[in-house]
Amino acid sequence: MMRFRFAPIPAALPATVPFTGPETLERRRGAPFRARLGANENGFGPSPRAVAAMARAAAEVWKYGDPDTHDLRHALAAHHGVAPENIMVGEGIDGLLGLLVRLMVAPGEVVVSSDGAYPTFNYHVAGFGGRLVKMPYRDDAEDPEALAAAAHRHGARLVYLANPDNPMGSWHPGRRIEAMLGALPETSLLVLDEAYAEFAPADAIPRIEPEDARAIRFRTFSKAHAMAGARIGYAIGPAELIAGFDRIRNHFGIGRIAQAGALAALEDRDWLAHVLAETAAARARIAAIARENRLEALPSATNFVAVDCGRDGAFARALLDALAQEGIFVRMPGVAPMDRCIRVSCGPEPEMAAFAEALPRALRALA
Amino acid sequence: MMRFRFAPIPAALPATVPFTGPETLERRRGAPFRARLGANENGFGPSPRAVAAMARAAAEVWKYGDPDTHDLRHALAAHHGVAPENIMVGEGIDGLLGLLVRLMVAPGEVVVSSDGAYPTFNYHVAGFGGRLVKMPYRDDAEDPEALAAAAHRHGARLVYLANPDNPMGSWHPGRRIEAMLGALPETSLLVLDEAYAEFAPADAIPRIEPEDARAIRFRTFSKAHAMAGARIGYAIGPAELIAGFDRIRNHFGIGRIAQAGALAALEDRDWLAHVLAETAAARARIAAIARENRLEALPSATNFVAVDCGRDGAFARALLDALAQEGIFVRMPGVAPMDRCIRVSCGPEPEMAAFAEALPRALRALA
Repeated sequence: MMRFRFAPIPAALPATVPFTGPETLERRRGAPFRARLGANENGFGPSPRAVAAMARAAAEVWKYGDPDTHDLRHALAAHHGVAPENIMVGEGIDGLLGLLVRLMVAPGEVVVSSDGAYPTFNYHVAGFGGRLVKMPYRDDAEDPEALAAAAHRHGARLVYLANPDNPMGSWHPGRRIEAMLGALPETSLLVLDEAYAEFAPADAIPRIEPEDARAIRFRTFSKAHAMAGARIGYAIGPAELIAGFDRIRNHFGIGRIAQAGALAALEDRDWLAHVLAETAAARARIAAIARENRLEALPSATNFVAVDCGRDGAFARALLDALAQEGIFVRMPGVAPMDRCIRVSCGPEPEMAAFAEALPRALRALA
Repeated sequence: MMRFRFAPIPAALPATVPFTGPETLERRRGAPFRARLGANENGFGPSPRAVAAMARAAAEVWKYGDPDTHDLRHALAAHHGVAPENIMVGEGIDGLLGLLVRLMVAPGEVVVSSDGAYPTFNYHVAGFGGRLVKMPYRDDAEDPEALAAAAHRHGARLVYLANPDNPMGSWHPGRRIEAMLGALPETSLLVLDEAYAEFAPADAIPRIEPEDARAIRFRTFSKAHAMAGARIGYAIGPAELIAGFDRIRNHFGIGRIAQAGALAALEDRDWLAHVLAETAAARARIAAIARENRLEALPSATNFVAVDCGRDGAFARALLDALAQEGIFVRMPGVAPMDRCIRVSCGPEPEMAAFAEALPRALRALA
């Protein structure tokens, strides 16, 4: 018997904790992981200039962060060639996706995504009482045409697509996303998650005018800029939509250290180039490790690689557990047939070497 | 004509930005403030151990923060003599208040607060479609008995009370809050905002068992621990209620640097004692400055002082503007009769001296 009466929407949500961090897994196993390759974190680390800016900001942390995120927003606008009014900085893409769903989706309205795509987006849709319609992946990629068709059928308010995709690492050419925009009904807004955009080929990025009312795109400092623990990301979209966030967001919610670090990271193009080169090399390294073990790495435009284990989800799950026994933290897609894969994040050579050493042992343990 | 159709609740919210930070005011005036005394920030600064912990964590910021906030939550539980399951760490009290309203208040349900109390709480109530009933202050303090009576009349879901109070600095003995709990209807949960608790006399803190289903209390690292820009606070309450946050919170939303800093700050009791002593001295300093200018400082159990300017709200507003001209950032209560006051945050002596120098000039400018 519950002692508390929650509001109807949260009362109907699952009581279980939906996300488990690597620290929780480490506490359960009683030892730290040797290689933290499960959350698509970027072990090449943040720009030393960003680290220095954050360390300086730590002494000033008695001040709230600028609620207007003025300096960062203006720098981002210049970087993307849009107006500052087209940018909303938030507490990571996760935080911004929650605000977007709250802003746009009334209880019972339909949101379209792909079955196996980003669970946190689904969590927010359920959390605000939206009705989620999930389309299947096609050839290990989200299916833009099927998503647009579903948006028509259901009069969807939002349509989620990540390009490049997580968890598969696949990507579409930008022109295919542009074509998808033309195929959407007027009722629908494309939620274009570009968390991994910096890792992708240039032609994977669609050309979308910032005032195009059909799309809002999301970027983050968590991945290429290696600042996941700082909680800072941003949306790019039409000024009227961007201003909508001001009605509901936590205005003083974006940390002062995070803002200082993000600004310095954005300015350090050399470090970004270094990270992208290291990441590309690590993708090739993971593919080579997979090959040596007669597994197949799928092509990736991200900082992780989906490794096809050639069997079913139960096998991949068992391999994941065997790798965890070896001290290797990786994750896997949750939905068939993608769940034949494990998803390995790129990282520095010591972690890659640990994975290379552990994978054949884990496979043998299953044989 | 709007191009976007927002969901009904956000569509009905004001389109204006409700909060203005000091940086925005500085940009408008074209110069930085000499003294930043308007946001009850703690210019005595964070513990050097916390600064060092945050600087160390900056290099590790490529990792997400622990979504379980395990180490901090356990340390807070030990500190307060409660179970870890009685603690929820969040993105400042502001973030946690938003989650609480969303968890507990269905659209149209009533929430009781005081007219002139914390605007961000009201913002969240409106933001989730709650109906706010505001009771007047009495003798420059929130009125526990009137709030409880209003909760009965309206079947309120939540009743907000800050003890000590912001913006007036007044406080009630803990036993009066305990009595208020007994006077609440069964439908109502007391939202006890203790952001300033560390500054208050020990007997201002009510004794409330953590499993008492009538209350949830909120603490922060923004004030006494001087970490406003890190965005970290926590709730203490019954385990079942605390677990409710897990249904809707942004699980990876609490920054890694913030968690590391908060843990170090909590452990540095000497620094806290230093800050409390400095704050008490600054309160006396503000009172002396007020007296020298024939104004009256009200008693305060916080890190700010409400200074009664002896006239009406228009006069206090004009004084605020004149102080801003002098480079002094202070704020004021928004509602009569408390708006006869300006609210001055405690700070180090250079800021106190700047205020002492500017106040007579600002008063002369109005004469």
